[in-house]
Amino acid sequence: MGENTEPREYFESEDYLKPWFERRGLALLTDLYQLTMMAGYFEEKRGDIEVCFEYFFRSLPPHSGYAIFAGLDSFLLYLANLRFSKEDIEYLRSLNIFDDDFLDFLQNFKLHITVRSVPEGSLVFPFEPVVQVEGPLLEAQLVETALLNFLNFQTLIASKSARVCFAAEPDPVLEFGLRRAHGPDGGISASRSAYIGGCSATSNVMAGKVYGIPVAGTHAHSWVMSYQSELEAFRAFAKLYPTRCILLVDTYDPIRSGIPNAIQVFKELREQGINVRPAIRIDSGDLAKISKAAYKMMLEAGFENPLIVGSNDLNEDLIADLRRQGAKINAWGVGTHLVTSYDCPALSGVYKLVAVKRGNVWEPRLKITGNIEKSTDPGRKVTVRYFSKDGYILGDVMYLEEEEYPTMGDIDAKARLFPHISQKIEGATYCEELHKKVFHNGNILIPLESVHTIRERARQQLASLPEEYKRLRNPEVYKVLLSPKLGEMKNKIWQSSEMCMSLGEKK
Amino acid sequence: MGENTEPREYFESEDYLKPWFERRGLALLTDLYQLTMMAGYFEEKRGDIEVCFEYFFRSLPPHSGYAIFAGLDSFLLYLANLRFSKEDIEYLRSLNIFDDDFLDFLQNFKLHITVRSVPEGSLVFPFEPVVQVEGPLLEAQLVETALLNFLNFQTLIASKSARVCFAAEPDPVLEFGLRRAHGPDGGISASRSAYIGGCSATSNVMAGKVYGIPVAGTHAHSWVMSYQSELEAFRAFAKLYPTRCILLVDTYDPIRSGIPNAIQVFKELREQGINVRPAIRIDSGDLAKISKAAYKMMLEAGFENPLIVGSNDLNEDLIADLRRQGAKINAWGVGTHLVTSYDCPALSGVYKLVAVKRGNVWEPRLKITGNIEKSTDPGRKVTVRYFSKDGYILGDVMYLEEEEYPTMGDIDAKARLFPHISQKIEGATYCEELHKKVFHNGNILIPLESVHTIRERARQQLASLPEEYKRLRNPEVYKVLLSPKLGEMKNKIWQSSEMCMSLGEKK
Repeated sequence: MGENTEPREYFESEDYLKPWFERRGLALLTDLYQLTMMAGYFEEKRGDIEVCFEYFFRSLPPHSGYAIFAGLDSFLLYLANLRFSKEDIEYLRSLNIFDDDFLDFLQNFKLHITVRSVPEGSLVFPFEPVVQVEGPLLEAQLVETALLNFLNFQTLIASKSARVCFAAEPDPVLEFGLRRAHGPDGGISASRSAYIGGCSATSNVMAGKVYGIPVAGTHAHSWVMSYQSELEAFRAFAKLYPTRCILLVDTYDPIRSGIPNAIQVFKELREQGINVRPAIRIDSGDLAKISKAAYKMMLEAGFENPLIVGSNDLNEDLIADLRRQGAKINAWGVGTHLVTSYDCPALSGVYKLVAVKRGNVWEPRLKITGNIEKSTDPGRKVTVRYFSKDGYILGDVMYLEEEEYPTMGDIDAKARLFPHISQKIEGATYCEELHKKVFHNGNILIPLESVHTIRERARQQLASLPEEYKRLRNPEVYKVLLSPKLGEMKNKIWQSSEMCMSLGEKK
Repeated sequence: MGENTEPREYFESEDYLKPWFERRGLALLTDLYQLTMMAGYFEEKRGDIEVCFEYFFRSLPPHSGYAIFAGLDSFLLYLANLRFSKEDIEYLRSLNIFDDDFLDFLQNFKLHITVRSVPEGSLVFPFEPVVQVEGPLLEAQLVETALLNFLNFQTLIASKSARVCFAAEPDPVLEFGLRRAHGPDGGISASRSAYIGGCSATSNVMAGKVYGIPVAGTHAHSWVMSYQSELEAFRAFAKLYPTRCILLVDTYDPIRSGIPNAIQVFKELREQGINVRPAIRIDSGDLAKISKAAYKMMLEAGFENPLIVGSNDLNEDLIADLRRQGAKINAWGVGTHLVTSYDCPALSGVYKLVAVKRGNVWEPRLKITGNIEKSTDPGRKVTVRYFSKDGYILGDVMYLEEEEYPTMGDIDAKARLFPHISQKIEGATYCEELHKKVFHNGNILIPLESVHTIRERARQQLASLPEEYKRLRNPEVYKVLLSPKLGEMKNKIWQSSEMCMSLGEKK
């Protein structure tokens, strides 16, 4: 590649930023081996073999009992705009890996895959298919990396957000994470996912503009430090924003200086006849102690219902702890831990081949490893969620695609890892199939949803999740089972391939 | 905002993706409070007060002895393209926070700030200024969030990469993380930073195209599973890519099936007169045990110098452990842990006001908190790095801007947290100022550097870092000191403000 010390040309058109996923040109957002394999399938004339891949994750972040699915919107827009530009193709040519036939093919590349997905904002659980991609091998292979990139991250953050919001309930959680997020999109996607998971607002103005998420904020320490005194700084802020005046009280000493100064300013506002809810933010020190002191001081000054925002490296555990200690905080600003999912910054989602079509028959496939827990579930599946009569979810069962399934009553099924062992879901009164067809032949088949719709779906689904799955520590494990037929099939493949493995795979 | 279930319009121009930072329109990539404060400064006619902010981080990731600075390129391109589009302004108007005067001002907004920075790829340490932003308060405030977003993340990943590469030395490390990165930019920036920190290549094709980073890859399990047998799959791959044939041997059983099949295929290549270095990848199971077995089997088959790539949730500690156990791996594929900095997914970088100009005099500022360790160092500074006669770095000293400093010998200085206590840097033979002016009046002042140049700088700087700072566990703490004058100033402000705090800040 050599040296390039010339400033790159800046983009000078009047075009404003669109989110990356509304742009063409993400075709190269993939691992090199996807393209190498594509070229191989193309060369071998195997690109049109029909296959079915499934996206699922093997485990939840530590202590989590559920995940909230997010990122479908990004993935669909990526698919709908997937083209190889001339520049992309010239770059690939420069690598000297690909021959001209394949590069010509890419020039006119179009997708023919069919995608089925659970809706964004849905509850999803380990090992059940979240997205299914069916169609020509060559295409299904290409989209793997981008799919994993979008869905792993956004699902991770929506799920983290749901935990944080659960800990703070019924107080609102404000997402303040842009400065610690992993790049601009890492921030914008995180804001969207955090909102879906239950946050009330974001500080990220770009996310506000792109998605219509409510934006929120107070002021920084630098505002105070740029004035000669804290009181002067507070007065100036209150004059400018009397109705949205949240004063940050910990630039110097909150108890001796910040809170008294804030109270002074709210008194002055009251004297001017401006009747606002007095509001402060505490961003350092012991949030329990300081918030209780602040509450008491504000009460004594005649302010009965102050808004006290707490921030500073908060996460769900710290929020729960502060509440147990009676912290008088009633809005929580959460940044770093939320937008990076600090204690588990990656969801272990994978994309695995589950079936290959030979003639007119779909043959099941599964990956067999020494590590049985990592083995996948074979075949094209329909996943059904069963509900109790009062609307709580009871468990999910994967059926083979052609299989008829019971819609209520006691549901017979098999354990995923022990497919010869029976497990039951008891007392189902109704059920739902989890997946919808969302993309086919280059077109998005569903209306794209606003974040508000998706957030409301997540809220409803979380309401249908029994408490035992929501505990912040050691939650109950939700049932994801195999239908008796699927269990039998898995068992049979296991048996035969164990044999096959011991013979050095000679089928 | 209401509902919007209409599919958004796709971007239909032939324009291909440029990296986000070469686009206009990132003005709203900021926290709402920056804009609120800007509007406040504007209203109060205080926007032109000259200030100086510093970007620094308070702590390194656990067990790290140093950081590698990255992200400057992104920040400079962001600055050079910073404009508020009409759409941005209409969005801000819709929030009903900002008045028309301020919005009109944004329409013609231009930057007048001066930015000084250490070069990308430099070694940096806690509490020393990495980037200094000087100029009108209003502008310096606006750019905080984007600066933190770019620099925190990219520096985090470049630093992680240096650790991973150190553990693997002299073997190459390949970055395979796109599927677990935080969104597309999270992946592309991570690939760039990982390369700067020492990785040899990335699987991320987009990063290859945008930055000219070498791309690498093998094939996936799905390639094998799409064939009737593993041997058939290997043969097909070898036929297509005889000279870049790395076979993934663990789709089924590596010892009984994968490795023997791979050896079979390499023998067939040899018989055809194609003399390539036989290469395999192992992606599951016990990498030490399997790689040793593979090495032995390949040796017995007459292949003396096989390339054995190990991957599967690797990080620097696991690589060091596997090497201690004699794993026969000589190239390391690292993904999730590298691109998310899994054990510490956020760098605690902050941006703090250190000086305000009154008339012609720069007044120092510092944030004083109950937590003394979090207090900042006041004033505009010059940071000087001292070197031993054999080119090793000895320590960094911050001087006041106007201060003359010694260039060699025993350097007198003060401890940062105990500015009344003396500390020395002994035996310096030469020194360097760390910062260069990089941006002024809307223009980038330095030629933008290629990633190759930056990677080479990081390599040279790492070579100048004594071993004791590189240990993977409990490294020595590098000296970052205050000049005697700066120490004295800090002490004086501390003393006076303690008084000030106890009087409820009445200055």
